[in-house]
Amino acid sequence: MDSFYSIIIDKKSEVPLYQQLAEGLCHMIEQGILVANSKLPPIRQMASQLHVNAVTVVAAYKYLEQKKVVYSLVGSGTYVSPLPIEKMPEPLIFPSVDVQKQYSIEGAINFVDSSIPQSLFPVEEFKDAFYTVLEREQGNAFRYLDSMGYFPLREILCEYLKEYTIHASAENIQIISGAQQGIDIISKALVNYGDTIFTEKPTFYGACATFMSRGGNVIGINMEKNGIDTLELENLLKVYHPKFLYIMAYFQTPTGISYSTSKKRKLLELAEKYHFYIIEDDNLYDFYYGKEKIIPLKALDYKNKVIYIKSFSKIWMPGLRMGFMLLPKKLLESVRSAKYTTDISTSGFLQKGVEYYLKKYGWKHHSEIMRKYGGEQYRMAVSAVKKHLAEKVSFLLPKGGISLWLKLPPNVEAEQLCTLLLQQKVIVSPSTQYYMGQKENNENIRICFSNVKQRELEEGMKKINLVIERLQNAP
Amino acid sequence: MDSFYSIIIDKKSEVPLYQQLAEGLCHMIEQGILVANSKLPPIRQMASQLHVNAVTVVAAYKYLEQKKVVYSLVGSGTYVSPLPIEKMPEPLIFPSVDVQKQYSIEGAINFVDSSIPQSLFPVEEFKDAFYTVLEREQGNAFRYLDSMGYFPLREILCEYLKEYTIHASAENIQIISGAQQGIDIISKALVNYGDTIFTEKPTFYGACATFMSRGGNVIGINMEKNGIDTLELENLLKVYHPKFLYIMAYFQTPTGISYSTSKKRKLLELAEKYHFYIIEDDNLYDFYYGKEKIIPLKALDYKNKVIYIKSFSKIWMPGLRMGFMLLPKKLLESVRSAKYTTDISTSGFLQKGVEYYLKKYGWKHHSEIMRKYGGEQYRMAVSAVKKHLAEKVSFLLPKGGISLWLKLPPNVEAEQLCTLLLQQKVIVSPSTQYYMGQKENNENIRICFSNVKQRELEEGMKKINLVIERLQNAP
Repeated sequence: MDSFYSIIIDKKSEVPLYQQLAEGLCHMIEQGILVANSKLPPIRQMASQLHVNAVTVVAAYKYLEQKKVVYSLVGSGTYVSPLPIEKMPEPLIFPSVDVQKQYSIEGAINFVDSSIPQSLFPVEEFKDAFYTVLEREQGNAFRYLDSMGYFPLREILCEYLKEYTIHASAENIQIISGAQQGIDIISKALVNYGDTIFTEKPTFYGACATFMSRGGNVIGINMEKNGIDTLELENLLKVYHPKFLYIMAYFQTPTGISYSTSKKRKLLELAEKYHFYIIEDDNLYDFYYGKEKIIPLKALDYKNKVIYIKSFSKIWMPGLRMGFMLLPKKLLESVRSAKYTTDISTSGFLQKGVEYYLKKYGWKHHSEIMRKYGGEQYRMAVSAVKKHLAEKVSFLLPKGGISLWLKLPPNVEAEQLCTLLLQQKVIVSPSTQYYMGQKENNENIRICFSNVKQRELEEGMKKINLVIERLQNAP
Repeated sequence: MDSFYSIIIDKKSEVPLYQQLAEGLCHMIEQGILVANSKLPPIRQMASQLHVNAVTVVAAYKYLEQKKVVYSLVGSGTYVSPLPIEKMPEPLIFPSVDVQKQYSIEGAINFVDSSIPQSLFPVEEFKDAFYTVLEREQGNAFRYLDSMGYFPLREILCEYLKEYTIHASAENIQIISGAQQGIDIISKALVNYGDTIFTEKPTFYGACATFMSRGGNVIGINMEKNGIDTLELENLLKVYHPKFLYIMAYFQTPTGISYSTSKKRKLLELAEKYHFYIIEDDNLYDFYYGKEKIIPLKALDYKNKVIYIKSFSKIWMPGLRMGFMLLPKKLLESVRSAKYTTDISTSGFLQKGVEYYLKKYGWKHHSEIMRKYGGEQYRMAVSAVKKHLAEKVSFLLPKGGISLWLKLPPNVEAEQLCTLLLQQKVIVSPSTQYYMGQKENNENIRICFSNVKQRELEEGMKKINLVIERLQNAP
């Protein structure tokens, strides 16, 4: 309470006393001395401490309330409003915002990095593409483009989608600056404050952070071995009317689970029955290692309920910052508006480069390289886990993707394990990160194997084994 | 009312009657037969029309309300909820979303296009920059970068800012994919649903659309000849607590007005006194045609109240899609998070290209070219208006920028004038576009002269003169 003595009330000043008090309190809030949701002293107490009339304190509190600096709860008191900076979800462990920091741990074994080694980027082809575009277009490469994107690129993406068994028209394609922007733009177009959003549980926190930042009420639905629990989903649909359900139909982040065809059909049926959209976030199509091709949910979407978001980050290069969405016709206008108010359009220079690349080089050759590389990494990772952790963890074989989702033995907590591993320069994400920081599941870890060498895999697994043992034997 | 006969209630079905009715209504809403905010028939009327019990209708309405498909107003009835697509502001006349369409009017004289002719883009220099970066970095050019941006670029931008009399540290610079994204990210970091935002009135609709899309309550404050009306501002500050005030300190869009130094100081004083931030949107610094250098608001900001957003679209090339923000330290973390959930980071390839360009070529030479070009266009535009419209319009000399704000004679409405001009292939924006579609001011037009030739200016003014005369002489 002493701290309130720092407010100086000058009774000779022309500034009204309540105003002086209000300003003093504001100052303390700005300085972080009074934190969000902390209670201000009761009126009489404050008045006697500062030697002012109770009416002055009432006026100051009312004034601050009008300005949303504080809020009052009937019968309880007056509280400091949360500052905007605090509306973001709790800081997560190893948040991807800190990619830079992760790389900067010298010599660390990184099981969080989901990118592909730089040596696999088709750099020469893209150099050719960007050189050619600059020579061909000159200044025209840097004009504004339509918000939906460069039309010839959208046309060739329709060809590309045939590979994915999806039939699309260029009119329904929206170019985006990466998949994360797609999620952001869809949220802008569809989510109003207080709207309900369904997601898989666990899921990618970057998507949830976006939904929550728009005031969305995010409800996670548990995953089963062959996709989301559709019974739980339908029960919740009887109570809520979500704007959309956000899913990854194969090699889900973080579980690696893929949907069975019957689950996919069930989802589409429910979307139609209960009038909601499904966002299908596809960043790993090319990483299947079985013989059978995968069928995206969008390929089965005859009723136009699926918003398909395609990232190029895993296939080509993460720093390209480009991708696209295939949209139900009804959403085209609102999404285009949302894209315009987001960044007007994706760089035309980059779009033209990608268009040239696709036209000249196609995509089959490179996607085969990626699949071959991913498959080798996958087999290496599975065998390293089996060799070093067979008695410690259990997991499902995802048959694709870039990560394994390992269940720890009882009494070993994922967060504690990851913290200890970090001290040994092994970076691993704990399950809580995919449960929005909740401790609901603190018993899995995710091992991303897309950018580690065999030696690192072996050494990493050995270290994980040792730390698990240490935790098991702790008193 | 006939339309409700299309709902078929099958009394033999296993589906409960209320569910059938609810689904029928949903279907009509989806089809657009029932539009947002339209009233559903009273319960008894609906019941008798469909030959069901009133309880069934009550249950159906309640069910739809739970799902937010409809809402009820006490004592008034049940209404169709607005669909997400309709939460956007009313479509504006000549919205910039349709840049493509504007260009596609063959042979039109375009006084809306605010870009610089392609022939002035420093294309050779940027080609050199992108070639060099690709050769130097190879695949590294396409890795993920930190969300805040490429550090060497942020460092050289501090040098660049000295030209603007702004002293900055690289830690406080956030790279963005164009100024519009800056506005969007700041909104994401600061605006919660229901928050108040102050803007100049009139102002750039792209910014307002972004604030509104986040549920912001936008209040415009009138402009005077030397900046915003600070008396009106202070009066409103006594009632509202805005998250920020969005302004353009010189050559404001659309009025061309620049702030006097005393107004700038007053603004900063108010920002401190009433605890709000000021967004300074700077896209035209280089376009002053007088002898004196301009002082940005940010240069006077000793109390860290100004969020400075810098666009590169006018200086270099609009399609580059890059810019930066200089932020108060307190906002760094929340803005970085917002950038991450928006698009992770701006393309590293583009950032590295711009960094190389700035380091090798500097900025003085090119900004002199731009100022010289802009000044010539400005003098040409002013003299064309004086020559052809002297008796029709009045306007202030902005002494900089890329547009003139012309006041029409009484009884000539801007919207009608612009519609008639469009038929004559002259594209001009009416004042209503900058008043969020409100008819509050229907008496100004904005003439953007940055991308028209002398012949077009003369011919355009002649046509405007003729159409104004026609409207004045109309019965």
